[in-house]
Amino acid sequence: MAIPDDKVKTAVDGRRGERAEHIYRAAAEIMCQKGYEATSMKDIADAVGLTKAGIYHYIVGKEDLLFQIMSFAMDMVDENVVAPARKIADPEQRLRTIIERHARRILELGGAITVILEEMAALTPAHRKAIRARKRRYFDLVRETIVELQAQGKLRDVDPTVAAFALFGMINWISRWYRPAGKLTAGEVMDDFLEIALNAVLRNA
Amino acid sequence: MAIPDDKVKTAVDGRRGERAEHIYRAAAEIMCQKGYEATSMKDIADAVGLTKAGIYHYIVGKEDLLFQIMSFAMDMVDENVVAPARKIADPEQRLRTIIERHARRILELGGAITVILEEMAALTPAHRKAIRARKRRYFDLVRETIVELQAQGKLRDVDPTVAAFALFGMINWISRWYRPAGKLTAGEVMDDFLEIALNAVLRNA
Repeated sequence: MAIPDDKVKTAVDGRRGERAEHIYRAAAEIMCQKGYEATSMKDIADAVGLTKAGIYHYIVGKEDLLFQIMSFAMDMVDENVVAPARKIADPEQRLRTIIERHARRILELGGAITVILEEMAALTPAHRKAIRARKRRYFDLVRETIVELQAQGKLRDVDPTVAAFALFGMINWISRWYRPAGKLTAGEVMDDFLEIALNAVLRNA
Repeated sequence: MAIPDDKVKTAVDGRRGERAEHIYRAAAEIMCQKGYEATSMKDIADAVGLTKAGIYHYIVGKEDLLFQIMSFAMDMVDENVVAPARKIADPEQRLRTIIERHARRILELGGAITVILEEMAALTPAHRKAIRARKRRYFDLVRETIVELQAQGKLRDVDPTVAAFALFGMINWISRWYRPAGKLTAGEVMDDFLEIALNAVLRNA
């Protein structure tokens, strides 16, 4: 029996998707080390074992690659953080889930992609607008969750926007300092981190 | 009576120093907006009203300028945060002073220089080593202060290193989001921020 066309397409997309993800991660690592501007397409091709011609099968150029990496990062946020969080009615549990899932991805998968998410100046205006809107939607989810906690009397006496940015700062900064080969395991950091982040904003976490 | 030579030198250094600081701040703003690599010496000269030849009176090139900006940033940290903090014997009061003074500089003077402090990849190896050592000394002061608080039973049940990085993340992130023209005044953010940051790490802040 022939495999239905849509199945074939999914399988091919899957392989291509994995390959693309591999390129995004490798490119993000190099861009982190060398800086975005100083990274060449050849650096990226070398890192993933493709010829310079081969890599253009996956990406049309460096700015487009940067946009693809950022879009991939926001896809991961939507899938692994935002979607599960939106299913949780209780705002305290929702906030805990957001912090834990976001921090865990950085701790376990490395922070290069998180760092690259800040290279907004290198995007074209249209791409920048698109990524900014996606970041904004995530921020709004966190802020709205904090506003719900405020209504329940659980938020410290602070502005919800300041609280939300403090949490984003703590979480995103993990990408700057955590090294899996260092003294602390991802699990140890995760436990301490939840204790710190929840107590930062909640009266009785 | 002639002005002693050393007085003349100080006065000249003072004027030159102010001019240099003006260039550092303006250059950091442009580098933040355009990205370090995409910023040209002409962009910087234009922003400070110097000819391209004139700006080379103050700086020898773009990498050197980046190093000068970072050194200036660390001079400010040493002078305005570290030196006053080291005079405070009580670790809780010392930590409060560090958070408040560091955050206040970002809130009141703008965050461009803080953002530029992360452009480590663009430095020469020798310059990178020098800046990394200065950042490390500041980090160690914060971490040692937290260890003292731990000995007093005031730290939450968390690793001092994780606590120190959480604080740095929160504080440095202010440079990414705070806009003086926005809804929140620097004073409002400062009050909320101290509440959030101290409760993040201390049991009874």
